Amino acid sequence: MTTAQFPEITEEEQAQLDDLYARFAEAHMTPLWTQIGGLMPTSPRPDAVPMLWHWSTLLPLAERAGELVPVGRGGERRAIALANSGLPGTPYATPTLWAAIQYLGPREEAPAHRHTQTAFRFVVDGEGVWTNVEGDPVAMRRGDLLLTPGMHFHEHHNTSDRPMAWIDGLDIPLVRQLDAGFFEFGPDELSTRATPDSSRNERLWGHPGLTPVGAPAPKASPLMAYRWEHTDAALAAQLELEDEGHPGVVEPGHAVVRFTNPATAGDCLSTMRCEMHRLRPATRTALTRTAGSSVWQVFEGSGTVTVGDDTYEVGKGDLFAVPSWAGLSFRTDTGLDAFRFSDDPVFEALGLARTYREVVAP
Amino acid sequence: MTTAQFPEITEEEQAQLDDLYARFAEAHMTPLWTQIGGLMPTSPRPDAVPMLWHWSTLLPLAERAGELVPVGRGGERRAIALANSGLPGTPYATPTLWAAIQYLGPREEAPAHRHTQTAFRFVVDGEGVWTNVEGDPVAMRRGDLLLTPGMHFHEHHNTSDRPMAWIDGLDIPLVRQLDAGFFEFGPDELSTRATPDSSRNERLWGHPGLTPVGAPAPKASPLMAYRWEHTDAALAAQLELEDEGHPGVVEPGHAVVRFTNPATAGDCLSTMRCEMHRLRPATRTALTRTAGSSVWQVFEGSGTVTVGDDTYEVGKGDLFAVPSWAGLSFRTDTGLDAFRFSDDPVFEALGLARTYREVVAP
Amino acid sequence: MTTAQFPEITEEEQAQLDDLYARFAEAHMTPLWTQIGGLMPTSPRPDAVPMLWHWSTLLPLAERAGELVPVGRGGERRAIALANSGLPGTPYATPTLWAAIQYLGPREEAPAHRHTQTAFRFVVDGEGVWTNVEGDPVAMRRGDLLLTPGMHFHEHHNTSDRPMAWIDGLDIPLVRQLDAGFFEFGPDELSTRATPDSSRNERLWGHPGLTPVGAPAPKASPLMAYRWEHTDAALAAQLELEDEGHPGVVEPGHAVVRFTNPATAGDCLSTMRCEMHRLRPATRTALTRTAGSSVWQVFEGSGTVTVGDDTYEVGKGDLFAVPSWAGLSFRTDTGLDAFRFSDDPVFEALGLARTYREVVAP
Amino acid sequence: MTTAQFPEITEEEQAQLDDLYARFAEAHMTPLWTQIGGLMPTSPRPDAVPMLWHWSTLLPLAERAGELVPVGRGGERRAIALANSGLPGTPYATPTLWAAIQYLGPREEAPAHRHTQTAFRFVVDGEGVWTNVEGDPVAMRRGDLLLTPGMHFHEHHNTSDRPMAWIDGLDIPLVRQLDAGFFEFGPDELSTRATPDSSRNERLWGHPGLTPVGAPAPKASPLMAYRWEHTDAALAAQLELEDEGHPGVVEPGHAVVRFTNPATAGDCLSTMRCEMHRLRPATRTALTRTAGSSVWQVFEGSGTVTVGDDTYEVGKGDLFAVPSWAGLSFRTDTGLDAFRFSDDPVFEALGLARTYREVVAP
Repeated sequence: MTTAQFPEITEEEQAQLDDLYARFAEAHMTPLWTQIGGLMPTSPRPDAVPMLWHWSTLLPLAERAGELVPVGRGGERRAIALANSGLPGTPYATPTLWAAIQYLGPREEAPAHRHTQTAFRFVVDGEGVWTNVEGDPVAMRRGDLLLTPGMHFHEHHNTSDRPMAWIDGLDIPLVRQLDAGFFEFGPDELSTRATPDSSRNERLWGHPGLTPVGAPAPKASPLMAYRWEHTDAALAAQLELEDEGHPGVVEPGHAVVRFTNPATAGDCLSTMRCEMHRLRPATRTALTRTAGSSVWQVFEGSGTVTVGDDTYEVGKGDLFAVPSWAGLSFRTDTGLDAFRFSDDPVFEALGLARTYREVVAP
Repeated sequence: MTTAQFPEITEEEQAQLDDLYARFAEAHMTPLWTQIGGLMPTSPRPDAVPMLWHWSTLLPLAERAGELVPVGRGGERRAIALANSGLPGTPYATPTLWAAIQYLGPREEAPAHRHTQTAFRFVVDGEGVWTNVEGDPVAMRRGDLLLTPGMHFHEHHNTSDRPMAWIDGLDIPLVRQLDAGFFEFGPDELSTRATPDSSRNERLWGHPGLTPVGAPAPKASPLMAYRWEHTDAALAAQLELEDEGHPGVVEPGHAVVRFTNPATAGDCLSTMRCEMHRLRPATRTALTRTAGSSVWQVFEGSGTVTVGDDTYEVGKGDLFAVPSWAGLSFRTDTGLDAFRFSDDPVFEALGLARTYREVVAP
Repeated sequence: MTTAQFPEITEEEQAQLDDLYARFAEAHMTPLWTQIGGLMPTSPRPDAVPMLWHWSTLLPLAERAGELVPVGRGGERRAIALANSGLPGTPYATPTLWAAIQYLGPREEAPAHRHTQTAFRFVVDGEGVWTNVEGDPVAMRRGDLLLTPGMHFHEHHNTSDRPMAWIDGLDIPLVRQLDAGFFEFGPDELSTRATPDSSRNERLWGHPGLTPVGAPAPKASPLMAYRWEHTDAALAAQLELEDEGHPGVVEPGHAVVRFTNPATAGDCLSTMRCEMHRLRPATRTALTRTAGSSVWQVFEGSGTVTVGDDTYEVGKGDLFAVPSWAGLSFRTDTGLDAFRFSDDPVFEALGLARTYREVVAP
Repeated sequence: MTTAQFPEITEEEQAQLDDLYARFAEAHMTPLWTQIGGLMPTSPRPDAVPMLWHWSTLLPLAERAGELVPVGRGGERRAIALANSGLPGTPYATPTLWAAIQYLGPREEAPAHRHTQTAFRFVVDGEGVWTNVEGDPVAMRRGDLLLTPGMHFHEHHNTSDRPMAWIDGLDIPLVRQLDAGFFEFGPDELSTRATPDSSRNERLWGHPGLTPVGAPAPKASPLMAYRWEHTDAALAAQLELEDEGHPGVVEPGHAVVRFTNPATAGDCLSTMRCEMHRLRPATRTALTRTAGSSVWQVFEGSGTVTVGDDTYEVGKGDLFAVPSWAGLSFRTDTGLDAFRFSDDPVFEALGLARTYREVVAP
């Protein structure tokens, strides 16, 4: 780009420029005109790349870590992050999102801590672990989304004789980039060993359209568990309404629910959007592009997903990362349920949201 | 008050004043100083008075109306309003709230219309009627709250061989005072005779913390039915949490849920707040005063309610009106469930909300 | 309307109906079907009527009151309200708005009080009075709008040897209807006799686009004086921009600024909207209808205003009331500046706002 | 940290671990437990370091660039960025903020473009350049803040025979990290060569507390110029109020105004906060820490600033960067005016804001 500016530069001029640039460097200055193409591309040019991680690879490695690596104070969690090859040296799935498989062996405990980073767990399989959030024990079961808003103490304990694995999503890369992170250790002993079916926050806030008057909502979501039973019913209803000729789906054969904070109706977390998608058998979605990145995990079914120039066959538990503005589309014969999380709330809060949806000729 | 200003007024001065006041009247002017005490009292002096209406009186009269008065275009609804004696000549329960018993005979239909006035139905007993709101059939059953936001077409039809009665709440007095009312007739024929258990709006929006992405919410609540099953569970949970030593109730033995718009987390209606209260057996509530008026209906149980200087024994179905700033307290031996609606959202939106709660010495 | 329902009613049926209605009355019940047309008209049918008050009538009567009626504790203010003939027995300009001329003689003082009713002063002519709002002395000068948000103590004192008159706008009718009024007397002595050109609130908040970080804004507007110099400049700029071919005016020849709270960007008062309108010479405005009522005062110039079926010639100081949904249009040869206040914020907050604008064929 | 977990690890165990970690790497996985200290520190550990750039260094280098480097399509701007040594290889002042000196020679033009990155200019000295924002010519003069919200076309032209330099602030690092950037070239020819004193946006929106009704505000700030005359007056007023014993300053001797969007009352830009600070002569500020980073430029006066462990003598035009959570305090004998911009709106929007203020014993 800059070449175009200096069509006939003499040797002397070049020497003068070199001298100027050396003086810039010495003064801790960098000219825009030599960098603008990389800094301000015409559309996003992410370093992050589309990537796929097979559950069949992740789970055995997590199990092996369970044999070799203790869980406890210091390391804190037996979580193994998905590392995007385009972001070498980092354990980040995308520039803003951390995704990890966490593994807790039979009767194991992960000690309490809290941090400004926002977290959730999504359970693709299994049960038996309770996560205590601010002392409120929250059961983790297949299909559930469990939240840990920023600066909420949390600890996990496996009450069963079987191991359990799930995925963690956090905004670690974003918070690291912003230098916004604070972290505190909690007590070494579990705050509670109670194992109720339903947490206190669900009992107060988990009733549709009903707000408890005596329990003022904090800034973060007061509801910290979204049960599969409800998610499944909501998705099924959208497809049934489509069958009956009524609105509800986002496109033919494609139902979506967003997990939201019942006290504000906004996203369940301030920095991450969580959604569950259901594709009917024999569905092909329109290609979409979104400014911002996301990570998906297949929950049930199988299909083909195209991310940018890559195409993956995906099945239960498989995770993939979608960089900013990469084209995304799905095909499925069997039908497919997939959990998605993204940095959409960040983009919306900052006025940076932008989407593109392919219009398919009829 | 004004007397104090003219301690030694002569006859001539009085004549001059009389002349001035006459000229004011002629010029369509009214002095503040002769009126300020009534216009701007030190605390609200409502014309409306505390009143009680027994269900055992209302229901037979509604039944008798069912025998004598047809339902149909023109009169529109067989609804009989509760008329506050302090507001003579009006059919208003309070200066802002309309409350009525509506009665629909076996197989009867009430034709479609829509209006800027906001409405809801609350069902103290019975079932068999569907209210079609914008063509979406909504079953009405015991304990349910059903909304009709402003300018939504609605019609009712009784699908059973038994009559059904319920209460209607509307903001008719407020809208009348503001001169804000618009009204339109709909088609004479029912939009649908379908009688699904669950309406389409519930299937999309009635899942806790789950927002349908493909069905953007209108300004008014997209959820138009709040089922007793959920309300009951939410109230029960609050009292159980109290038993377990956890927060949730508004005061000892007193659980409250507010019916809210899942797309905004605000009140379910823009001009009326709707709540269900549950008092544990052997409970006595603190006296409260609220700027703004409310109407209550006992849903289950019995007790004693004090409104201002009046004390009523109340049981199932009984309604009472609470004028602005009147002291309100309850006593119950058996326990009591009561539905409340009020003009609180108006007061909050306009910066006029104010409450007082008696502090009881321990 | 109801007649249509009983096409062939027998004498016996009528007797039964009469009996039912008598029992309704006894039980404090009123049927909807005999009242619906009046309660729920197809469009607003205000009791309030269009009315005009000439300044040339108001001012001499206020002066005469200045001779006969003292200002002081009890009567509080020498304010004479504009009373709408359609609202007999009330001192209301419209169902929601109070408008009065207030008159303060040379060196007179009006003592401190505060109330939930929101107030403003608009000065069509004169100067020399300071209104102390929460102890902050605010000069009142020609063309200025001065606010007194709810529950702010305020007192007035005339520092000059000449009387001064202005208009007061309050939401007294609305607050009275809602039973929302609280009122308190302040100290009998003036809080301050300082007469600065600029009040403290202006010095903190009266800079365009600049927010003082050390002075957190209260809920009500922190800026309590809007000076004519700025209003005039803003209106002039809109018309100049129109001359230059740029956007800014609301319709050809018609500039409007709204007085807003710099801490929220919303209306300057929670229950009343205040605006200044400027019509270029030889302008005719489109007819508009607004759900909600307003009161206007001509500030400069003259013209013809049509309100509903009435047409008035208006000049400096003249006030007129516009009932809900009445058609409103202006014609002026000389140009016209007019101050408007309305209950628009109430309608917007409650979801009741509606407007209609005549489309004039080119 | 991780050492603590493996107090007595055998060689075989180490070999097994090594094997596991190799398999992680192959599978594009990274364990949390080896990284958590760096990823999730107990408080922010920014890579960015405190830095100072002297205006006396920057300006001559910018002038030299003016001799050697043309302005035009491709390089787009003759802007030289301040590069934080802690962020090697980047032209970033902090992880979120770009700060640059821009230099435009006599009669030079910088061509139109637009981008999602948000920008502003602040003028420490000089005049004669107009920046056309969406075709609206905005004069740039000493002390002025000029905005270029995201996706607004902008171009600069120097109408005088003297060069002009100013600072640019942009959210380039944040937008780059988020992969949120879109960029478009505009026409090569200037949209206008008009040089009005006041831009159209100022004429519509630059009146205190006055909102133009006919010019609906866009999402971004409709006001794009904040003039020194107003900023200076607002700061002076705060210190005068302090002298008079009234609130207004943020701490003794320290006045601050925030540049805000008059259509929302929020920050003037969605991703950057802009403020002007004034310290009275002989003032020492309390030490503060803020989660988030900022860049300051001294506008007038001189003093000593401490950032983290560094202490700088600063005077007119000098810039310094404050990393997240670094302690910041000022001392000045002469008094000091300083412009500050920061990523505070990002932190507030995402629920990450946190501040600490040293409490000084009296």
